Amino acid sequence: MPKVTVVMGSQSDMPVVGKTIDKLKEFGVEVVPMVCSAHRTPEIAAQFARNARENGVDVIIAAAGKAAHLPGVLAAFTTLPIIGLPIKSSFMDGLDSLLSIAQMPSGVPVATVGVNAAENAAILAVQIMSFKYSELEEKLSNMKKDMANKVIASDKAVKNSFVKD
Amino acid sequence: MPKVTVVMGSQSDMPVVGKTIDKLKEFGVEVVPMVCSAHRTPEIAAQFARNARENGVDVIIAAAGKAAHLPGVLAAFTTLPIIGLPIKSSFMDGLDSLLSIAQMPSGVPVATVGVNAAENAAILAVQIMSFKYSELEEKLSNMKKDMANKVIASDKAVKNSFVKD
Amino acid sequence: MPKVTVVMGSQSDMPVVGKTIDKLKEFGVEVVPMVCSAHRTPEIAAQFARNARENGVDVIIAAAGKAAHLPGVLAAFTTLPIIGLPIKSSFMDGLDSLLSIAQMPSGVPVATVGVNAAENAAILAVQIMSFKYSELEEKLSNMKKDMANKVIASDKAVKNSFVKD
Amino acid sequence: MPKVTVVMGSQSDMPVVGKTIDKLKEFGVEVVPMVCSAHRTPEIAAQFARNARENGVDVIIAAAGKAAHLPGVLAAFTTLPIIGLPIKSSFMDGLDSLLSIAQMPSGVPVATVGVNAAENAAILAVQIMSFKYSELEEKLSNMKKDMANKVIASDKAVKNSFVKD
Amino acid sequence: MPKVTVVMGSQSDMPVVGKTIDKLKEFGVEVVPMVCSAHRTPEIAAQFARNARENGVDVIIAAAGKAAHLPGVLAAFTTLPIIGLPIKSSFMDGLDSLLSIAQMPSGVPVATVGVNAAENAAILAVQIMSFKYSELEEKLSNMKKDMANKVIASDKAVKNSFVKD
Amino acid sequence: MPKVTVVMGSQSDMPVVGKTIDKLKEFGVEVVPMVCSAHRTPEIAAQFARNARENGVDVIIAAAGKAAHLPGVLAAFTTLPIIGLPIKSSFMDGLDSLLSIAQMPSGVPVATVGVNAAENAAILAVQIMSFKYSELEEKLSNMKKDMANKVIASDKAVKNSFVKD
Amino acid sequence: MPKVTVVMGSQSDMPVVGKTIDKLKEFGVEVVPMVCSAHRTPEIAAQFARNARENGVDVIIAAAGKAAHLPGVLAAFTTLPIIGLPIKSSFMDGLDSLLSIAQMPSGVPVATVGVNAAENAAILAVQIMSFKYSELEEKLSNMKKDMANKVIASDKAVKNSFVKD
Amino acid sequence: MPKVTVVMGSQSDMPVVGKTIDKLKEFGVEVVPMVCSAHRTPEIAAQFARNARENGVDVIIAAAGKAAHLPGVLAAFTTLPIIGLPIKSSFMDGLDSLLSIAQMPSGVPVATVGVNAAENAAILAVQIMSFKYSELEEKLSNMKKDMANKVIASDKAVKNSFVKD
Repeated sequence: MPKVTVVMGSQSDMPVVGKTIDKLKEFGVEVVPMVCSAHRTPEIAAQFARNARENGVDVIIAAAGKAAHLPGVLAAFTTLPIIGLPIKSSFMDGLDSLLSIAQMPSGVPVATVGVNAAENAAILAVQIMSFKYSELEEKLSNMKKDMANKVIASDKAVKNSFVKD
Repeated sequence: MPKVTVVMGSQSDMPVVGKTIDKLKEFGVEVVPMVCSAHRTPEIAAQFARNARENGVDVIIAAAGKAAHLPGVLAAFTTLPIIGLPIKSSFMDGLDSLLSIAQMPSGVPVATVGVNAAENAAILAVQIMSFKYSELEEKLSNMKKDMANKVIASDKAVKNSFVKD
Repeated sequence: MPKVTVVMGSQSDMPVVGKTIDKLKEFGVEVVPMVCSAHRTPEIAAQFARNARENGVDVIIAAAGKAAHLPGVLAAFTTLPIIGLPIKSSFMDGLDSLLSIAQMPSGVPVATVGVNAAENAAILAVQIMSFKYSELEEKLSNMKKDMANKVIASDKAVKNSFVKD
Repeated sequence: MPKVTVVMGSQSDMPVVGKTIDKLKEFGVEVVPMVCSAHRTPEIAAQFARNARENGVDVIIAAAGKAAHLPGVLAAFTTLPIIGLPIKSSFMDGLDSLLSIAQMPSGVPVATVGVNAAENAAILAVQIMSFKYSELEEKLSNMKKDMANKVIASDKAVKNSFVKD
Repeated sequence: MPKVTVVMGSQSDMPVVGKTIDKLKEFGVEVVPMVCSAHRTPEIAAQFARNARENGVDVIIAAAGKAAHLPGVLAAFTTLPIIGLPIKSSFMDGLDSLLSIAQMPSGVPVATVGVNAAENAAILAVQIMSFKYSELEEKLSNMKKDMANKVIASDKAVKNSFVKD
Repeated sequence: MPKVTVVMGSQSDMPVVGKTIDKLKEFGVEVVPMVCSAHRTPEIAAQFARNARENGVDVIIAAAGKAAHLPGVLAAFTTLPIIGLPIKSSFMDGLDSLLSIAQMPSGVPVATVGVNAAENAAILAVQIMSFKYSELEEKLSNMKKDMANKVIASDKAVKNSFVKD
Repeated sequence: MPKVTVVMGSQSDMPVVGKTIDKLKEFGVEVVPMVCSAHRTPEIAAQFARNARENGVDVIIAAAGKAAHLPGVLAAFTTLPIIGLPIKSSFMDGLDSLLSIAQMPSGVPVATVGVNAAENAAILAVQIMSFKYSELEEKLSNMKKDMANKVIASDKAVKNSFVKD
Repeated sequence: MPKVTVVMGSQSDMPVVGKTIDKLKEFGVEVVPMVCSAHRTPEIAAQFARNARENGVDVIIAAAGKAAHLPGVLAAFTTLPIIGLPIKSSFMDGLDSLLSIAQMPSGVPVATVGVNAAENAAILAVQIMSFKYSELEEKLSNMKKDMANKVIASDKAVKNSFVKD
């Protein structure tokens, strides 16, 4: 079973991170939520990342805001792909979070998604895991079809409402 | 053998993208370079992305600058993970590229690396492919050790040069 | 009769895009609203743009937010002028939308208006169509006079309110 | 014959604006270059814009940098479409130019292209004039094909150079 | 009697501009409010500025938002000092307004105050007029003393509230 | 007893600065609050800073917003370390405050903390004073342990809530 | 004779400030250059500003970069108008300088010109002094005519060069 | 003897960090240079910071660019004050470095100086250490006097050069 640990720097990130977890569960992924801080519990963060691969974690999603060091700090201790989810901060809508996560030095990448792009963090994790768990590929295809159908339905709804005018 | 297509919007991106290709080759990855534009050859882009998985492509790396639509446009046609490499443009050092790549709508993620982070795009691809090609994991671990050793050597060099003062 | 298709990436853009449609109708333009996503229904977007000119569409207005690829993606498939309307996103008030729309590569322009400038998108479309539908020119002149008169009336109102003080 | 006046705030803008003029000439457009300042020759600017339509001007392209008022000031005096070309300034790569041109008030749009996007200003003008001068449509289609062919040729060149490695 | 015309682009700017007017009145300045648009009533704007000096206007304060051309457009037609008051817009808190006003070309300055700095626009006007109306100098000195006294009183209040803790 | 003067430019900064004061008191530090303006009471500011060291002040914390000159102005008159606390302004979330405080000229540093980082200003002051007052070191260590324990407790809470699902 | 003191924070600002001085001399203004730092010689700065009016200074121009406190610090000590000239720094082209100068608190305005707008600082000073020294008004009018004539000459030059093509 | 460890993420930071070291030596401080990466040698970073206080380090200065995690990561492991020196990166002149260092979460402050403000990092360290090593206070006072004298000399030089004109 595919397994993702979703790490957040603070429990207060749950309104955003909760959407990541929900989306992962839609895909049948085993999710382990974790509150862990790069600055307040650095040793726990290091230990978790160091052992993640052998503990069966497939992908790590790390959400953080402001000087958002968590994804990068985890990436320092593992060769697993780390997905960084910048949380919208109270400063320039999370420009600080985005830059602190994306602008990693050469050799230690973080796969960054958009600010507060909680669902995209989950979908990217599923795309990555589809190499190992081939059933995920079909689920992704189906999601793509569902998305298209929703757009098509919206298109009809908008067009109908204008005909009625 | 792991296989990555490295797509660039213009041949002029080669000074950056060439580093991505070189790094992938260091890992023994088969690399297919491709020049393809979201706006000038959109049908070729769509066709490539639509067939990439069945053509044995494992990961797509797409480099683009300014209104950097290429990674997102490719992501629309495949469930493979797309790594977006923002090219430094002549406007605010590529802030336009970074935002055009990272801020994708929900459902269609792009794994964004830093501006001009050519090597990180390659390493992230290798991390992702390490699920399928287990030999890559060891190579990643070795690269991590090499990086650490270089830092340790730099530290010695700097300290020695100060002792000599 | 002049004809504009107003494409939006999501039905949620209607509060802004609705003003574009209303303004176009004031000018007697036939408006076709359309929900269509560059990333979720890319083939529908391509097909629409490819056939727009022969289907009698005069101008396409495309509204999009965040990594706002829709106007550029449509522009890839047609030689019709595309007006890009950046939607105010939750990130830096739509700086991402503005740059993703305006900073198009050479050869594939998008006529960009201001962030959330819904009425200006409509008026620009009317200005463009006034070449083909000469009655629009007079309507534009009248609109300019109306705008001036409203400013003059405001000026009187403000001056009067101060005299009363 | 289609006719475009290309207005620039200063002769020093010619290195950029010259590319606009060249591109227009490729399309067989009659180009009138004009140096005219919103702040130094405001009356000339006003008079030009007021009479442009009856003088047979089809589209106005206005290039300006920094507090780039020229396109907006011209738009105040005409119902012709104004294409605004933000010139890269010495401040934040022309962010000032871009915002001063794009963020026009409701009722007076300027069709903004990217910073220093000289060729796109020309192509957008041609797209707009293709309503009146139908031969331009074919030229635009041909340009699109040429651009695609150049990308395809680049793709071959890049692939060949890698085979040789 | 010193005389200032306070021009605003739209009546909707009154919540900010009203504070400018009130502050000017505190100094005994004759204030003429004016609604006038650089883009909607450009001829009225030009005529006003051209005649302002001979009509006895001492200083012009011009408030505008977004692509805030009004102060610069007025400056084109007069040698009077123009104070530009950038109005906080819905885009990046008025960064567009600030840059459109401050970044004027050489030869045509606008004395820019901070975003929404309504009172400072008034005080700067009074400082400028103090050359001509010497009674204003004393009023300015008194205002400075009042401000200092208010800070000293606040300091006492804060210190007292802490002693009580 | 360690002693910190917490200077704010305006009493309206108290909602933020109050948290600095509270945090300092938690550490048993003597706090003197002060309202003092670099621009409205510059002589009081200068006199305070000039005499601070001999008056037994160990560290000065200065909070200011917008063109936040207060910390730098105080730094001009003393060799004590000045901690600058940028207050979130109504312009770009305090980017103005942050830059006005951090970007000091060579020779006159201000120790800048994050925008509205009230508690961090206090903790940094305590870290600095721990050289002189060794009991503070243990309190800092305990605070670090408490922070870690809170994160660990949050982690348990989040994990438990998921088990219950 | 009109008199302006041009204060700069560092002698290294002379390449920019020199243009301010030259422009002032063109208008026959007596110029006193002054190197004075808000942070390194704060008492000299205060004393200068405090006595400037009675020493016959009409306007103060203060140039500064980065955390550009100098204009604001001088404004604290005088009721004379202070013109702030933001010097282009090595950080974001002087965004720090611009915001540190423009965003002054209520009650203490600085008349800000554009980044590195050395000539505009001078011209604004002349405009302000034209109240007191009426001969300056005619010089300003003549400068406006000269500027217009230069634009007209450029226009002819550009048009001629195109006819020759 | 006061002791500062100056940590840099990469030997390539030496052109900036070298100025920090030189300035510290001017004050007679013992400097230990160290190359250490938050992401490439995280365990060495942690171990260094954990033991720094007992190893006699008084202050840590950490220089880093881009996603500049190093100062924050060190701060996680020690209660010593950490001075963060943002290195100018190739992206927006180090806005990424500045925000990654300054915007630390509550509880783990970093004393941030300006971008590339190498000397200020040193001087701030000396100010902090002056509590413990009282001879530093006099050296700081002397440096302040020297700086003032240099400004006064510059002022004379500038004034003399103008008299000669």
